[in-house]
Amino acid sequence: MGNYAFGVDIGGTMIRLGLFEEDGSLLDKWEIPTELSYEGSRILPDIAGSIREEMKERAIRQEEVVGVGVGAPGPIDADGTVFCAVNLGWDVFNIPEVLGSYLNLPVKAANDANVAAFGEMWRGGGRGYSDVVAVTLSTGVGGGILTGGRILTGAAGAGGEFGHMRIRDGETESCGCGRTGCLEQYTSVGGILRLARKRLQKDAVPSLLRHKDFQAIDVFKAAEAQDAVAIEVARQFGEYLGKGLAAVASVVNPELIIIGGEVSRAGEVLLEYICPAFEKYVFSACRNVHFVMATLGSDAGIYGAAGLFLNQEERNH
Amino acid sequence: MGNYAFGVDIGGTMIRLGLFEEDGSLLDKWEIPTELSYEGSRILPDIAGSIREEMKERAIRQEEVVGVGVGAPGPIDADGTVFCAVNLGWDVFNIPEVLGSYLNLPVKAANDANVAAFGEMWRGGGRGYSDVVAVTLSTGVGGGILTGGRILTGAAGAGGEFGHMRIRDGETESCGCGRTGCLEQYTSVGGILRLARKRLQKDAVPSLLRHKDFQAIDVFKAAEAQDAVAIEVARQFGEYLGKGLAAVASVVNPELIIIGGEVSRAGEVLLEYICPAFEKYVFSACRNVHFVMATLGSDAGIYGAAGLFLNQEERNH
Repeated sequence: MGNYAFGVDIGGTMIRLGLFEEDGSLLDKWEIPTELSYEGSRILPDIAGSIREEMKERAIRQEEVVGVGVGAPGPIDADGTVFCAVNLGWDVFNIPEVLGSYLNLPVKAANDANVAAFGEMWRGGGRGYSDVVAVTLSTGVGGGILTGGRILTGAAGAGGEFGHMRIRDGETESCGCGRTGCLEQYTSVGGILRLARKRLQKDAVPSLLRHKDFQAIDVFKAAEAQDAVAIEVARQFGEYLGKGLAAVASVVNPELIIIGGEVSRAGEVLLEYICPAFEKYVFSACRNVHFVMATLGSDAGIYGAAGLFLNQEERNH
Repeated sequence: MGNYAFGVDIGGTMIRLGLFEEDGSLLDKWEIPTELSYEGSRILPDIAGSIREEMKERAIRQEEVVGVGVGAPGPIDADGTVFCAVNLGWDVFNIPEVLGSYLNLPVKAANDANVAAFGEMWRGGGRGYSDVVAVTLSTGVGGGILTGGRILTGAAGAGGEFGHMRIRDGETESCGCGRTGCLEQYTSVGGILRLARKRLQKDAVPSLLRHKDFQAIDVFKAAEAQDAVAIEVARQFGEYLGKGLAAVASVVNPELIIIGGEVSRAGEVLLEYICPAFEKYVFSACRNVHFVMATLGSDAGIYGAAGLFLNQEERNH
């Protein structure tokens, strides 16, 4: 058995790579640009080249590598077949087959949000838990679900993609997906700003938010400073997210919910708004849930990708 | 390896038992009463006795039995530990340990709704699928979820219990669970009758439903007969259930949804009302879902319980 694994997190502009030891500790991490030309056909050769380079520099032999885990944005099934990853220009093909043929190493691949959730469970905020929901609040709202310690992939790799669950009837503005009332419309970076702007327009009550360049996380900072308008907006955010997570919890009965993504940089103050709403909406049999903040930040993807091999190995010990 | 497995489905009044061949065919099925006295402590000995009797009658030897699968109403974790099954009077204990010690056979146990869903996937309407949501519309609304062919148990065995997901804001009547706007309030037997009665009280438009003893499934029969009031009620039912199932689909990304339970006896007409609403609410990445009716009826539980052993065996072949 090998002593190392690589974790690869493919994004639309950068690819993050990590070299891990068998015990899950991160030895090295680096980035390469995502080359989108030729329908993304350079992406996997570039990754293979970068991994070979690292192996050469560190004198790591082929047989010392357990495998290469990959997270990529798009629907990827349990066998690692991707179905049209539009952000990368990819059509339909099997990632482990193609990357494996370049590297002559075992490869596993899964959706990036699911891989990041797996990383948080394995080495981040979710350590020691195996039934976990991770929600990512960034430009979009996505998520990943672990059940019995395994990624809930779903039929087409869209397991945990609950950002477009209908959370409010009667919404008049459209979500990016074309429908209305999606969770993302109230809890993404843009969603929080939208809630804040709507509240600010309603009247002229003084608020720390009445400067033009405020960010989504400023809402929660202002709420911590007892700004009444910001508290109102934070409560709206919490109401929608708590309600959405209660619905998710009633489907998969997690023991832990991890809050991550750009918005999570606001810190634990978020939980003051999310948890009361969650408690209000959740079915009693599913209410016994801990909430924690994500801890791995943008490294969650490389951890989770390497974990596709190393976490498995741990179990087989 | 053995040639037989037993499937046991424990209900509040009757226990169903089935003897299965290794290939999943049902050889015999029978029922015994559920003895609730002494805090349900007779239930497992009664099951053990009944299984031993069947083995004796058929001259089945201990080593010919692969195992005994059990479904029971209540939260049961992945190890088969039950946590307060109130309908049976049970506290906390490990079902495989206790029943296994009576029978000296391998035992597995899981929540009854999850086991029934597993049965439908293995030998019923879901044959050939592995990412499945099964919803049961009866006195209550429950469900079971299979992901990658495995039961989604959840932290406390409440995976798939989405009947109490909030589906409507502004509901004034209370659900049995104490909250308002739960899916069950619109889609259970009682929920459908409630929708129908509310509609009938609204005006005096003639309807086939204006006789006092109509049942939930009569709503759909009358809708098939072009009864305008019944069609309206069926549409309301479909709207709520389609919306709820769209939320579930956006969490677990199934390839198949199976409609079962007492209400499903109305037949495929239900899908005419459920599917358009599902299409309207579901996230595009999760919309590629087939809908079928459950086919095993009240045998789903014994099939699924036996399948806890036999489906596994099939995989290992």
